[in-house]
Amino acid sequence: MTSMDTFEKAFAHELGDIHNAEKQITRALPKMIRNASNPDLKRAFEKHLKQTEQQIDRVERCFEILGQKPGRTKCAGMEGLVEEGSQLLKDDVPGPIRDALLIGAAQKVEHYEIAAYGTLCTWADQLGATEVRKLLGQNLSEEKETDQKLTELAEAGVNVEAAAATDGN
Amino acid sequence: MTSMDTFEKAFAHELGDIHNAEKQITRALPKMIRNASNPDLKRAFEKHLKQTEQQIDRVERCFEILGQKPGRTKCAGMEGLVEEGSQLLKDDVPGPIRDALLIGAAQKVEHYEIAAYGTLCTWADQLGATEVRKLLGQNLSEEKETDQKLTELAEAGVNVEAAAATDGN
Repeated sequence: MTSMDTFEKAFAHELGDIHNAEKQITRALPKMIRNASNPDLKRAFEKHLKQTEQQIDRVERCFEILGQKPGRTKCAGMEGLVEEGSQLLKDDVPGPIRDALLIGAAQKVEHYEIAAYGTLCTWADQLGATEVRKLLGQNLSEEKETDQKLTELAEAGVNVEAAAATDGN
Repeated sequence: MTSMDTFEKAFAHELGDIHNAEKQITRALPKMIRNASNPDLKRAFEKHLKQTEQQIDRVERCFEILGQKPGRTKCAGMEGLVEEGSQLLKDDVPGPIRDALLIGAAQKVEHYEIAAYGTLCTWADQLGATEVRKLLGQNLSEEKETDQKLTELAEAGVNVEAAAATDGN
């Protein structure tokens, strides 16, 4: 880990952390797309994969603005979340229940990002990094929207189908 | 991992996951308390440790109501988050910057819990588990309050002190 003896360096470290986290998500999402049964959920994950790629571009633009590079930070938090999601994808779980579990796992990932971008935005405000703040604010808004979309999908049908699968329907 | 071929079993699994996550938090918080410099932050962590113990009691009451036991689920997501938090606690980080990093790490933990309890609450609604829903709703509210409190501490002073430490003050 690089030194964090200044607030700017700590900011760059946290920016590198979310950069690595987003990269991990682009590798995890294809598996989630393949395992989703509900077509709306599949589409939501596909949309989020494209969005994640744009978010990585924005984070890289932040590094450029700051005159720095992402470095080799490995995001341990996202590694754990991806591992947790993988454990849920067992063959004997009926499709509708797997969908409900996938939404839960995805919302944990979204909330990780909401926390990370939330911190980075308040830090960018403190550092007066206006352009960087704007880019990270866009990512933060998108993560909140995705989280909200997943809640809607769960409540609008996925959870009902999961409970019905329980009854042998 | 136990079977998740019914929605009830998937619910019990996710409940076991947050139970283990909360236990991990009670083990991680004392280290965070020791490493916090800002007295308000120290107090906030101390308060949250007590709150976490009550939250574990509520989760265990949920298991009792459901006629089940927590089991041996290990929460991989929280393991990653705790690991990430530990990596930040390096000796060469000045106190005010470490405080800002600790708040960021704690908010990632809070958001994990907000996502987990959020999912459990919508699932409990779907399953008609009224009493369980009420207990988990209390935990969800407390996690949101803690997250909000941490944002206030960051914006009210910790980030300012972290930026000042950068200037050698």
